[in-house]
Amino acid sequence: MSSKRILDMIHSPADLHLLDIDELGILAQEIRDEIIEVTSNNGGHVASSLGAVEIILALHSLIDAPKDKVVFDVGHQSYAHKLVTGRVEDFETLRLFGGLSGFPRPSESPYDSHPSGHASDSLSVASGFAKARLLNGTDEKIVAIIGDAALAGGMAFEALNYIGSQQLPMVIILNDNEMSISRNVGALMKHLGNIRATRQYRTFRENVQEQLESGGWVSNAFAEFGKRTKESFKQMIIPQAMLYEQLGIVCTPPIDGHDLHELHDMLEMVLPMDVPVLMHVVTKKGAGYSFAENDPERFHGIAPYDPATAQLKRTDFAAPTFTEVFGNALCEEAERDERIVAITAAMAGGTGLKGFAERFPDRFIDVGIAEEHAVGMACGLASAGKKPVVALYSTFAQRAFDQIAIDVALPDLDVVFALDRAGLVGDDGPTHHGVFDIAYMRMIPQMRVITPSNEKMLVDALKTALALKGPVSVRYPRGHGYGVALDDPSLLEVGVSREVRQGDDIAILAFGRMVNDALAVANELEADGLSVRVVDMIWAKPLDAEAIRRACDTRLVVTIEEGVISGGAGEGVLEVMQEIGSVCNALTLGIPDRFIMQGSCPLLFKEMGLDVPSISARIRKELSR
Amino acid sequence: MSSKRILDMIHSPADLHLLDIDELGILAQEIRDEIIEVTSNNGGHVASSLGAVEIILALHSLIDAPKDKVVFDVGHQSYAHKLVTGRVEDFETLRLFGGLSGFPRPSESPYDSHPSGHASDSLSVASGFAKARLLNGTDEKIVAIIGDAALAGGMAFEALNYIGSQQLPMVIILNDNEMSISRNVGALMKHLGNIRATRQYRTFRENVQEQLESGGWVSNAFAEFGKRTKESFKQMIIPQAMLYEQLGIVCTPPIDGHDLHELHDMLEMVLPMDVPVLMHVVTKKGAGYSFAENDPERFHGIAPYDPATAQLKRTDFAAPTFTEVFGNALCEEAERDERIVAITAAMAGGTGLKGFAERFPDRFIDVGIAEEHAVGMACGLASAGKKPVVALYSTFAQRAFDQIAIDVALPDLDVVFALDRAGLVGDDGPTHHGVFDIAYMRMIPQMRVITPSNEKMLVDALKTALALKGPVSVRYPRGHGYGVALDDPSLLEVGVSREVRQGDDIAILAFGRMVNDALAVANELEADGLSVRVVDMIWAKPLDAEAIRRACDTRLVVTIEEGVISGGAGEGVLEVMQEIGSVCNALTLGIPDRFIMQGSCPLLFKEMGLDVPSISARIRKELSR
Repeated sequence: MSSKRILDMIHSPADLHLLDIDELGILAQEIRDEIIEVTSNNGGHVASSLGAVEIILALHSLIDAPKDKVVFDVGHQSYAHKLVTGRVEDFETLRLFGGLSGFPRPSESPYDSHPSGHASDSLSVASGFAKARLLNGTDEKIVAIIGDAALAGGMAFEALNYIGSQQLPMVIILNDNEMSISRNVGALMKHLGNIRATRQYRTFRENVQEQLESGGWVSNAFAEFGKRTKESFKQMIIPQAMLYEQLGIVCTPPIDGHDLHELHDMLEMVLPMDVPVLMHVVTKKGAGYSFAENDPERFHGIAPYDPATAQLKRTDFAAPTFTEVFGNALCEEAERDERIVAITAAMAGGTGLKGFAERFPDRFIDVGIAEEHAVGMACGLASAGKKPVVALYSTFAQRAFDQIAIDVALPDLDVVFALDRAGLVGDDGPTHHGVFDIAYMRMIPQMRVITPSNEKMLVDALKTALALKGPVSVRYPRGHGYGVALDDPSLLEVGVSREVRQGDDIAILAFGRMVNDALAVANELEADGLSVRVVDMIWAKPLDAEAIRRACDTRLVVTIEEGVISGGAGEGVLEVMQEIGSVCNALTLGIPDRFIMQGSCPLLFKEMGLDVPSISARIRKELSR
Repeated sequence: MSSKRILDMIHSPADLHLLDIDELGILAQEIRDEIIEVTSNNGGHVASSLGAVEIILALHSLIDAPKDKVVFDVGHQSYAHKLVTGRVEDFETLRLFGGLSGFPRPSESPYDSHPSGHASDSLSVASGFAKARLLNGTDEKIVAIIGDAALAGGMAFEALNYIGSQQLPMVIILNDNEMSISRNVGALMKHLGNIRATRQYRTFRENVQEQLESGGWVSNAFAEFGKRTKESFKQMIIPQAMLYEQLGIVCTPPIDGHDLHELHDMLEMVLPMDVPVLMHVVTKKGAGYSFAENDPERFHGIAPYDPATAQLKRTDFAAPTFTEVFGNALCEEAERDERIVAITAAMAGGTGLKGFAERFPDRFIDVGIAEEHAVGMACGLASAGKKPVVALYSTFAQRAFDQIAIDVALPDLDVVFALDRAGLVGDDGPTHHGVFDIAYMRMIPQMRVITPSNEKMLVDALKTALALKGPVSVRYPRGHGYGVALDDPSLLEVGVSREVRQGDDIAILAFGRMVNDALAVANELEADGLSVRVVDMIWAKPLDAEAIRRACDTRLVVTIEEGVISGGAGEGVLEVMQEIGSVCNALTLGIPDRFIMQGSCPLLFKEMGLDVPSISARIRKELSR
């Protein structure tokens, strides 16, 4: 780090007000360097963060945060925001255990208005701020920054519809980077593409700039938008009737989101307006770092890398990831059964479906960031005799809880939910941990929940789920498997567990990858002279009542799952114990009743008391009381 | 019933193909009479069902169901569909226990393609059918019928976006009745209003009809839409660039949804098209029954009534409903605290907020059918220092599970969720029972869950929820209270239960209105010489660990809740018992792990073994084993 950086002199965004555009440009470069340096060590969301640097700088140079509110949509683009809001010194702790969050976090800084983690929520949150402003009669600026992909989410549309009808005062910065995490989907994107291609826009943009520079009629005319008195001018500046205009939202012609002059001038126009304005900004993901520009998907969320070569620092993984195993297994199943259709929500890469998309393009469906529609569409496909596999991250599948229950489970349709990133995900923290799915799936009648403990079990689970009638959820963790050989998949018997270690003093009933930890715990306790049984429960629903009954013959029944205790499989085991009239001692281990912050998974497990030594200690303590 | 009805000769929709338009008109009247007769006895969704009669008849007279698929959005408009698909004889059992569902139900009839119960899902489901058609290379028609209010839901937009981009072959019938359950909200509605008002449309419509009658160029030209070769004509037939057009969906000019000729002609045009078409149909809710036409909101879902006077058959309720008590209590709280803001999602009447809306119009927010946005907006309001109360039906709040967890609970915002219709709702059946909320709220960290047992407790719960920092859910049932006096509200102590009956043999820990049943059970068991304690747990989260500990000193701990057992408060009690090392017997009562069908609540409770005699019997059995 050079000691002469402008960045080191920025203690709050108010300091940006003192910089001229050229200085902001220098600062932008310093921020890019800092982002690359820190993410190359810690991993992070590089592409989107680099793409939003100028937007953030221009905005903070003109508004008065935290009085004025900035709401990020999917806050992993907010690194520059963190750097200019007093967090330069801590930035090297980004995404580390106990360090700065990789997303905005209100408890971390008053400049973070909302813990943006799931897409498409920013406009609703901003509308709340705007309504509060109206009720209070104050004049703070409300700005939401949303990407083109997130704008296609249903929640964002609900908000736009409301914002337009109520004419809530806010600026919506559409950060249109022409790609979502994998690729844009949907008619909305085609529409934006058309606008981009409109030559009038470009010509007009040049005119706008000229006029702005002269402070002439355009500025004045633009201000008139809010008063709705210059319809003819409106037609002119918006040569193509836009979707958002129809919802009552003024839209600006697209500008270059890396040109601080353009951003500054446009923001100066739109910020004083008291009606909803959508400011269309075109950016490039990964801007300023050629590796990220050229492969923005790889640099969406990346592990530590060498900044000079973009190579990952660690590549010596012995086993494929659960994601890869799932993707390959689904291709094999699809080869055998042409009814299989794969659905994802803007996560073709993340859910391991790129191979499927190439091999079975007709049977691959990417609906964009639209989990509710993904599940609803699966419902129609299943009703028509197809076998849809809906591959989502566990945490994002929460968006479709209602659809899973009412549209799929109630009519008992053959839909498989492949929930990736189930359990702790590590560095992305509380918005991304997939800790609720066992509980929210378990409560749904007719649903079955399989929790494979390794990659071979995942393959079997998928085959089983596809063979079963009715809905099935298969949940598996982020990260690499154990190198278990993947021979031909075999069918699992519904609700039947597998004893993977014999023992009579203690029975550990483990779910998912916790089976492996349970085995390590058993080995530890063996040193104490305890004979420990370990059961791979395989099914969180239906539970293996017979295995639970047998477990009750030991001194202690321990359940371990990588999900919330409240409502989780462990409580289901207690319920079965109660039903069979057991008065055995039990210990229910899982994610405690608090949001789990970010950090490496081993650290997080330790912090929760779910690492092997802690589990052993808790079992010893339980036995001794 | 006259024996000469056409209706009695309709055994399947194919029979409609033999009727001419005049005969369909006679049938429409017969269906109206039948709907009014049956709903006047059974209650039901009168206004929307009467509004959709002609759409359904015209459609079934032209398509070939069940090969062709009709997907209803919110299927309470489907009564006419039921009547022409072989269910005339059973129609008198509509909404009764063991009878026909008030919604489509695939297990009831092959003509019911989907159990439409929650709004805005039809387009997604239909898109699944359409994709299956493409994959199969078949040519069945796919038709979705969606109301204007449901079209504003985010899920519907996600689907439209996808359908447009993929050009999926389907007809979307927009049943535009100019009102949602309470009133239309949102810019989308203004937009539709503008279209309705466009004189060109009317003029053009007349032209279309003339041309249609002559079988001339309009029909041909319309067919060309699909081939996208007549842009100039498209501009003409759609004089106002429409929202849906921008998404790639062909839109027709609005026609009269009660004119069978217009419906027939337009359907004949649009059904053969292989691209997505939105057929705009204007209807009147309650059409043909003046009482329902004049007060469609009252006739949205109505209890048994006198068809001649529209008076309810039963009005002798001694106590106000929980809904009314909530609405009044919220007004009183809002009088004292101007930070309070009320938010609902198209349910101002259903959630008891009409009085609030009149007294505090600025602080009343109806977002339309948009639960996700409702919760997201509450998040922004709370972040800005307001105290939002989000009033939703328990079952519809499922739509916002993710937002409740990630947008509200994670940043620990002061948002109160007032969940009405929590528990069994009776006649509307499985899509409307609010049985999941205790479980899905309980699993969310930082959330508190209050389950008031009567109307006085509801008032106290609301006051308490508003006084607490962080999110709180207050859940209360549909229907009338117990006539408990409502003196000044008092604050409840967090996590502290109330012993409402002393006893030492058995402790019943009851939640919500089950407290009253528990008292009746205690009285029954007293006859057996058993001393039964009844505890009003009040809080499903945090649970009163001390009360649970004390309960463990009895022979049996019984929990009763009006919610699913899986993940519910009873399992939470087991969890606490396990933590305190209890080996006491327990019996966990609640909604079993299956979808509960419709019927009167007493019958449903009996069927589940949750009526007083069954509960007593289960406790006796548990004691004797």
